Parts: sequence; structure tokens; C-alpha cells
Amino acid sequence: MAPSPFITLALDAMGGDNAPLSVIEGASLAIKHNPSLRFILFGDQGRLMPFLENYPALQAVSQIVHTQDYITNEDKPSVALRQGRQSSMRLAVNAVADGTADAVVSAGNTGAYMAIAKFVLKAMTGISRPAFVASFPTAKGSCVMLDLGANVSCDSSNLVEFAVMGDIYARDVMGIANPTIALLNVGAEEMKGNVEVQTAAAILKRATRTLNFQGFIEGDRIIKGEADVVVTDGFSGNIALKASEGMATFMTSLLKESIHSSWISKLGGLLILKPLQRMKDRMNPKLHNGAMLIGLGGIAIKSHGGADGVAYANAIKVATQMVSHGLQKQIEEKLHALSLDLAENAEKNE
Amino acid sequence: MAPSPFITLALDAMGGDNAPLSVIEGASLAIKHNPSLRFILFGDQGRLMPFLENYPALQAVSQIVHTQDYITNEDKPSVALRQGRQSSMRLAVNAVADGTADAVVSAGNTGAYMAIAKFVLKAMTGISRPAFVASFPTAKGSCVMLDLGANVSCDSSNLVEFAVMGDIYARDVMGIANPTIALLNVGAEEMKGNVEVQTAAAILKRATRTLNFQGFIEGDRIIKGEADVVVTDGFSGNIALKASEGMATFMTSLLKESIHSSWISKLGGLLILKPLQRMKDRMNPKLHNGAMLIGLGGIAIKSHGGADGVAYANAIKVATQMVSHGLQKQIEEKLHALSLDLAENAEKNE
Repeated sequence: MAPSPFITLALDAMGGDNAPLSVIEGASLAIKHNPSLRFILFGDQGRLMPFLENYPALQAVSQIVHTQDYITNEDKPSVALRQGRQSSMRLAVNAVADGTADAVVSAGNTGAYMAIAKFVLKAMTGISRPAFVASFPTAKGSCVMLDLGANVSCDSSNLVEFAVMGDIYARDVMGIANPTIALLNVGAEEMKGNVEVQTAAAILKRATRTLNFQGFIEGDRIIKGEADVVVTDGFSGNIALKASEGMATFMTSLLKESIHSSWISKLGGLLILKPLQRMKDRMNPKLHNGAMLIGLGGIAIKSHGGADGVAYANAIKVATQMVSHGLQKQIEEKLHALSLDLAENAEKNE
Repeated sequence: MAPSPFITLALDAMGGDNAPLSVIEGASLAIKHNPSLRFILFGDQGRLMPFLENYPALQAVSQIVHTQDYITNEDKPSVALRQGRQSSMRLAVNAVADGTADAVVSAGNTGAYMAIAKFVLKAMTGISRPAFVASFPTAKGSCVMLDLGANVSCDSSNLVEFAVMGDIYARDVMGIANPTIALLNVGAEEMKGNVEVQTAAAILKRATRTLNFQGFIEGDRIIKGEADVVVTDGFSGNIALKASEGMATFMTSLLKESIHSSWISKLGGLLILKPLQRMKDRMNPKLHNGAMLIGLGGIAIKSHGGADGVAYANAIKVATQMVSHGLQKQIEEKLHALSLDLAENAEKNE
């Protein structure tokens, strides 16, 4: 059977602060760049149609699966899993499991999405713990970091699996040929860190043929772009990400405050408006939207809850890239190559 | 016996990138504000004297203990501990242990200092793991965070001890009457996080009389100043701190780049120079220099390695505050009050 020329995405049309508008706008932007996309929109037909009718090109490639039930940001993951069986989110994830769609995108409740995706799609063969992965701007371009919060405690074999998945994500989504990989740690010296990162480093160091492992990286080096893939447990990863975001927001507000402090500084602010805009564009999270729960038996992309159409379109783009690159198969092959690499290396050392 | 009207500090005069100049300048600045200070300078007399002679007021209250041996930034902690018995750092720490000095300050090799201080001063009664603590600027003023890297893995009772020590540090160094305390976590909801933070939260929640515990805090909320004391394990704390520092440095360099991109933006930069300077002053790490290894049987302050005289003077100020407030005794009393509080609360629940 020839592969289908179309990529079908299941969209949770009711998930996210700006849904369904952001979803419709995002999908409409996405088909302009990629005419091979087909959408299944899960949600309330009565609420979706008025928006959809404004985008005839999108309407032509979309199908609505009607449901009135949806998951709110306040729903606990366990409750969403038990009681949300007819929710737009759950039905969208189901569509990937039963093969109707190639991937699912949701901007809804993160915890609920994670619980549902794990339950429905299960972990893929060879991966014990799916992880949250995303890319971020750095001084040199972008980097990939995982896990960002799916697993609050991880052992060394989880970290090694994250390294494999991060390597594939960097290649497929960011087009980096031979991504450098580093383990997040409290120091760069070999003896630093807890037993989990120590053991993971010892394993990764032996995988010389399959992974471009560089050693440890400290928290302040991530933004400098010193590694293409930063591997860490979900607790530290989440904290590193949020601490950076918090500082970026704080400094932006201090800068605004500085500019608004007098009419002279306001004039100064006007004169640096253009380069400041370029700086802002570079840091723009919209262009980096689309975190992914990687390592599942299907492709599930998480958009920011506050995403607008542009940001949502980027989440769709990430989903599309994952599908067209055959993410799961690539991870499987890399895991296999890694086990051969480690075995051979062990033999040599005997 | 009446308490001595003087506070005697042991200074590792050879530790730090700018030693001994930064040490001498810092001590000289410190006595201008606090004439009750007395110093014992540990280091090479031949190298110290030319600097010291420029500060006669300092010379009058200082004594040099000569040693030619000192610990470099490249020395491994274990080696420094074994082979550095005559080093300026070790002798300075010894002076606290034998009662010659009230506290020790060093800007030298952090790992070596930690190893030596732990070995010589031991943990104080009731504390199983000393922690690195420091204060940072936030949107509302300052906050205290610990552990910043002394312990890469911590259990719930370590975290509870950190909360007690952080409370005392916030009161003594920052003058906050009833500091709010929060546990760093990946979410604010009760069910979030690993077993260590979950258990610690359950204990702290019961300590209603002794600690002003507010629950969990996420990484992006630290800089907003939503808690006076942020409690975490040394792995996450170190990563949160460095990730924030990295982002601050990155954004500052982007801003500079923006301003230098054209002559128009350079003019704009000139017009906002003053408020930008105020912004920079507010974030100035010099004014927050002086991390401390808290929970030892003596007071040991760590200055940044790159500290200049102003920053070093602030580390001396932190040492002075700790001594004059009787830090150790206060922690002991708080630990005692906590155990009574928890016992009483347990009885009530029976």
C-alpha cells in the first residue's frame, strides 16, 4: 500500500484559552503552508461552524466530530480521565489510537492531556517513560530540552531514553544533523551531581557511535546554546524552564518601567523600538509553541493554553514534521542502534 | 563573662579571583560602617603587607597569620581537604572551630570551602545537612533560597530543616518579621511533585505556630517575590538559580546589542541610560554577595569568587549580622519550638 499523500490531524477544538477561534485560525494558517493537511475537529458543532464558515479553504479539508463535552483547565487529570470519555480531548486522542488520525494537537489542560495520552496511546516499545519535550531560543539558535515535567523523578535509564528521543526531535523538528547532547547538572566536572546523572553519563559516554554526548551542562549554559539537546528529569527541567521564563518576564517589565520613567526615556524608548522588536521576535514563544509528549505509541502535541492562531499553527507544524519524519520508527531504530553500540563497547572493554 | 564588644572575623585573604586586593578593600570598607570589627587575615604576609599598608585604619584592627599555602580554583575538594591543612582557607576555618574568630569569610574554591567547613565545623546539633543559602532580588524586594547546591539529593526532613534555617536567615539578614515560606515544585496544586516535597509539605503544614508556610511555589514565581523563603533540594535550587542568572545575562546582552545596532538606537540608549542604570543597580549581585553554608557548628560565609571590594564588604556584613544575631542559637530554638509545635498538633489530631 502506498503511503497516503495526506497528513490527517485530530484537533481538540475546545481546548485552550482562545478556543475554538485559535484552533480554527491556526489550522487555516497551517494549510496555506502545507496543502497536504487534513483535519478532524473535535468539538461543539454549533460553536465551531460560525468560525469555520469564515475559512472556506479550511472547511473544505476539515471534518467535524461533534461532542458537547470538553475538559476545563480546572479539571483534575484523574477526573478528566475517568469522566471525560466523550470530551473533545479524549475523542481526539482516540482518533490517533484507532488510526483515523496521524497525530493529535490540543491546547487544553496539560495534566489531563498527559494522563489521557498516556492511558490511550501507551508508551512506545523500548520507552519506559514518555517525556515532555520542547525547543527554546538560545544565543546560538535553539535547543531542545526534556523532560519538562512529565516525570518528577527519573532513574538513569529514563535519562538515557530521553537522550535518544531528544536526539531524534532535534534532527526532525530542528534539522540539526548531529545534535550535541548534555545532561543538566549542578557542575560540569565529572564527579558532580546525584547518582542518576552520574550513571546516565557513564552509559551515554560509551554510546560513541549513536549519540554525540558532550557531558554535563550547568543551568546558566542552556541559554548560551552550549548543547543542542539538554537532558534532565522532569522536576529539574520544569524548574529550569520556569525560572528562565520568570526572569525573562521580570526583565522585560523592568525595561518597560525604565522606558516609561520620564519623557526623555520615553523618547529614548522610541529610538530603540525597532531593535527591541527584533529582540522580542527572537525570544517569541509563539515561534517555539508545540511541546510534545514524546515516547508514546502515537504523536501527541501540546500547544500553550494561551496560544493564538499563529502559535497554534506552529504546534500543527511540529505535529506535521513528526508525522512526515516517522518519529516513532526513528526512535525505535536509534534505540536499537544504541543497544548494539553499548554491547560492542562493553565487549571491547572486556 | 560579658560578651566581647568586638566581632572577630577570620578572612581567607588568598581566596578569590581578585585576592588579596578585594579582601583588603572589602575589610576596609566594612570597618567604616562597623568599628566593632576585628580581622585575622590568613595568607602570605609578603603579599598582603603592601596592600594593607595603604589602609592604616584597617591595619590597626587586623592581625596577619602568615601561610604561603593556599587553595586554587582547580583543586578538587577531596585534595584540598587532605593536602591543604596549612592553606589560608583551612587555617581561617580552624580559627572559628577553636574560638579565635566568630566567623570566617572566603571567596575561594566553593567545593573545597564546603568540604573543609563541613569537616572542621561539623553540622550543628539538630541539623543533619548544612545547606547553601543566599538572598536574591525579586520584583517585591528580596527572597532567600536554599539549598543552592550543597546537597544534590535531599529527603523530606532535610527540606524541613532548610525551612527552619531559611526562616532564621530571612529574619536576621533581611529583617523580615514573619517570613513566608514555600517549597519549590513543578506545580502549585497539592498533589504535584515528588514524594520528598509532598512529605515535607505535609509536615510544614502542621507547623502553624512556628513557620509561616504557604505551600508550593513554581519556578517562575520566585522572581515575582511570592515567597520570602524558597526551600528546595540542592540540585533543583542550583539549577533554578543558574537558569535565572543565565537568562538575565542573555537578555542584558541582547539589550546591549539592540542599542548598538544603529546610531539612532545608540542615541535612544543614551536617553534611557539613567533608568537603565537604576534597573542594573537593583539587580546588582554585588549587593547580594555572601552566600552562607548554614547549619554548621560555626559561621562560614562564601563570597563570589569574582567579588571586588564592594561585594566582599557585603559578604563581611552578612557574617557580622549572623554573629550579632546569634544565628546558631536561634536555629536551635526554632528547631525546638518546631518539634513542640508538631507534637502538639499531632496530639490534637489523635
